[in-house]
Amino acid sequence: MNTPLIIDGKAVAAAVLEECRVEAAALTEKGITPGLAVVVVGDDPASKVYVGSKARTCADLGFHSVKIELPTETTQEELLEVVRKLNADPAVHGILVQSPPPKHINEEEIIRAIDPRKDVDGFHPENVAKLALEDPTGFVPCTPAGCMKLLEVSGIDTNGAEAVVIGRSMIVGKPMALLLVSKNSNATVTIAHSRSKDLPGICRRADILIAAVGRPDMVKADWVKPGAVVIDVGINRVEDSSKKSGYRLTGDVAYDEVAPKCAAITPVPGGVGPMTIAMLMKNTLQAARQISNSKL
Amino acid sequence: MNTPLIIDGKAVAAAVLEECRVEAAALTEKGITPGLAVVVVGDDPASKVYVGSKARTCADLGFHSVKIELPTETTQEELLEVVRKLNADPAVHGILVQSPPPKHINEEEIIRAIDPRKDVDGFHPENVAKLALEDPTGFVPCTPAGCMKLLEVSGIDTNGAEAVVIGRSMIVGKPMALLLVSKNSNATVTIAHSRSKDLPGICRRADILIAAVGRPDMVKADWVKPGAVVIDVGINRVEDSSKKSGYRLTGDVAYDEVAPKCAAITPVPGGVGPMTIAMLMKNTLQAARQISNSKL
Repeated sequence: MNTPLIIDGKAVAAAVLEECRVEAAALTEKGITPGLAVVVVGDDPASKVYVGSKARTCADLGFHSVKIELPTETTQEELLEVVRKLNADPAVHGILVQSPPPKHINEEEIIRAIDPRKDVDGFHPENVAKLALEDPTGFVPCTPAGCMKLLEVSGIDTNGAEAVVIGRSMIVGKPMALLLVSKNSNATVTIAHSRSKDLPGICRRADILIAAVGRPDMVKADWVKPGAVVIDVGINRVEDSSKKSGYRLTGDVAYDEVAPKCAAITPVPGGVGPMTIAMLMKNTLQAARQISNSKL
Repeated sequence: MNTPLIIDGKAVAAAVLEECRVEAAALTEKGITPGLAVVVVGDDPASKVYVGSKARTCADLGFHSVKIELPTETTQEELLEVVRKLNADPAVHGILVQSPPPKHINEEEIIRAIDPRKDVDGFHPENVAKLALEDPTGFVPCTPAGCMKLLEVSGIDTNGAEAVVIGRSMIVGKPMALLLVSKNSNATVTIAHSRSKDLPGICRRADILIAAVGRPDMVKADWVKPGAVVIDVGINRVEDSSKKSGYRLTGDVAYDEVAPKCAAITPVPGGVGPMTIAMLMKNTLQAARQISNSKL
């Protein structure tokens, strides 16, 4: 048994946000107030919470913030028109349409309609390509960017390390793998997924294990090599009658049994979660800088 | 010792090209002759050979073929103008600028200038993103597409298999990894590279090993698990005084010692090499089909 480093995502996120505050003030002094527009369609309560917290963070950091709440029955064309107006709005540097939209909305078309220079979520094909091409002017999706930041500030050397990413989504798994294998990071990267054979055996090879599948407590102690670094991207709600809310949050990693084997691990909540919004603010600053520079 | 399946890339390429011939004839009957334009700048002898062979293959299959040879001193702007004219030419469905161009040319800008609907090399960011997003309307780079075709026709099941790709270039390594991990293929994929620790050990895990590094005979027998499938993307010239040319071609895999351990292996030459041009023709047909459909 050893005592693992518990990577404090809340503290790292707070530090990133402090940096953002300073940078925002400096930009504002030059006449550029970084601006983020968040669009939410429909009444999904979780979406409303996310959007509210993004707007509050903007206000707190001195960003210009636009929150657009649209009714569920908003049409594709109406939503496209909102995006086009935000593309043209010089006070807005970042645009985010909260996912998931109602089912009648073609989300891919909406993402493509966002000006890639304002696509702070990093989901536009232009930014997907820039990530693969290792072009730093692109926007990296916030969650994998947050994971990289946690590794970096925790002093974890990725060079030549064996990293295993469980999950192959375009939101986390694939961008995470591309970041880890890039020349900035130089990890040997394995992408595993639901169809992988012997997932426990594959995970046991990892010096750095990233779990991004959305299955509560899937990664058990015997999936983890002693001394590994474990980054848990999962945020799952499981029923818990002892809680007032009736549920508790848990990650993809069976934390209590895995933590004692690790060199370092992120808890849930308080690990990767808080990083996502911090990296969104960082991306918005990057957008404000890049857009204002391109106008000089 | 066993007798491995020697994957006959020449025969597979010939079959793909026969398919292309039939499809080209059918399209031509409908008034659409698939057209490929190949641009080469400068006097690199290898480039001239490649470009000549692409033009001959086009002629042989009944494609419309445009070969543009430009002097070394061609400027960036002149080359961009050539690309723009080809973008606008309705008889041209595929455009390829032979790599590498002379050093004063910004190749990335040239690639971005190609209409992504005509980017049959699959290097335009739009197509890089479509590959990551698993959008079949994109163009897959020819060499990794050829490797996938070889696996397919050889009846090799990629589902849940452990694949290891050595090399992380945007021409082969990364697209290969994205293809293997996609929902069409479902392999567990490891991307290894020059900075990986214990490369032999990593390679020994592979059910399917793809070598794309450009180092002659690097992969030795003890790097390969008995019964593995080995795809050798390397085409290296090594000095050989016994040859009239003074050199012979060899892959990244030490074929003579590795082959007896394999279930299947591609030789060099005659393995992956011939597939590249065949997939280029296939991509050109896809472009002709897609462009003509979008005009209906």
